[in-house]
Amino acid sequence: MKTTVMPEPSKRRLVLLGRLLSTYKEKTITSQKIQELTGWTAAAIRRDIAMLDLHCGASNGYKVPELKEALQALVCTVSDKQKCCIIGLNRMGQVLLDNNELYDSPFKIVAGFDSNVNRTEVLQSSFPLHPTTLLESIIKSEGIQYAILTADGEEAQSLAARLAQCGIKGIVNYTSCVLTLPKSVSVENVCLLTALENLSAGNNS
Amino acid sequence: MKTTVMPEPSKRRLVLLGRLLSTYKEKTITSQKIQELTGWTAAAIRRDIAMLDLHCGASNGYKVPELKEALQALVCTVSDKQKCCIIGLNRMGQVLLDNNELYDSPFKIVAGFDSNVNRTEVLQSSFPLHPTTLLESIIKSEGIQYAILTADGEEAQSLAARLAQCGIKGIVNYTSCVLTLPKSVSVENVCLLTALENLSAGNNS
Repeated sequence: MKTTVMPEPSKRRLVLLGRLLSTYKEKTITSQKIQELTGWTAAAIRRDIAMLDLHCGASNGYKVPELKEALQALVCTVSDKQKCCIIGLNRMGQVLLDNNELYDSPFKIVAGFDSNVNRTEVLQSSFPLHPTTLLESIIKSEGIQYAILTADGEEAQSLAARLAQCGIKGIVNYTSCVLTLPKSVSVENVCLLTALENLSAGNNS
Repeated sequence: MKTTVMPEPSKRRLVLLGRLLSTYKEKTITSQKIQELTGWTAAAIRRDIAMLDLHCGASNGYKVPELKEALQALVCTVSDKQKCCIIGLNRMGQVLLDNNELYDSPFKIVAGFDSNVNRTEVLQSSFPLHPTTLLESIIKSEGIQYAILTADGEEAQSLAARLAQCGIKGIVNYTSCVLTLPKSVSVENVCLLTALENLSAGNNS
């Protein structure tokens, strides 16, 4: 990847473009075609793609295999799967336990945590479930990089602070809590209320 | 709200600031304090807030009640709750059925839909569940503005297109499908894979 810092909206568009191309059947794709499929302007798409390390011309459209490869490199530069854990095995956490969405992705969930030992002992999962007292030791020993936080309200901030302290790089936040974290930890807020508020704020403007 | 178009990152920060202030106990808050709590720079926060219709000075910090009110107006300018529906009553949809996160918010879920009539007949819910054949008529008769899309993969795009046709303003997309929609419909992509990819793309740069 080039060393220029990529603006957040460009990064988000390119991540979605990578997803779109994963099921795209043609050999080439033009910025105009991407505009039709996504609603982003062709000019914005060309600027975004110009920020990638792409060595193919675009006179008759981008070559899909090379574009896909450059987009994959944006998300993941290592060949090993990036390890994730789920924090909070309430109903939302349990849905994510069985989620097969990450199959064939650069990510793999390798552990689940809950402060309720009944849950960690009773729930079925393809990876080990632990009490949250073991958070620090398991994250370090497994080399876990990302956490999926579904813990219930009041616990969210204290768990997030502990995750930051053991070197987690990013948190997918399913709680409605606004997390206070050091700069070293990125957060993606995906709770339903935040999503609806973002939609609504856009529609009032 | 002022008539200038608000940049997307500003809108997202202000939405989260509104959430943060909903549990904030002090009477005033400075941009420096917001920086400590969120990690955004105080300068960015001041620029964001300057885009709101706010009639209070900021020499010793913003007055929290007035700031909260301006942030609420950003999300919702009407006093009635904005109506939402859930499309897809698979396990994720079922978790959202019982979600109390929207209690005390400007949003209310008033209907659920699934193409599997067993689900719509058997599942318990505080609002009516319908077969997806009734999507258009119920959305119009109820005046539903936002849809929460949790339908399984292949159905997602065709359901989204139907939602757009009956005048839905925005879709919270829990599927990993990249939706192709007219400009009139906003989308918030909140699937786990997109969230992890956004985190990871940020960390590679």
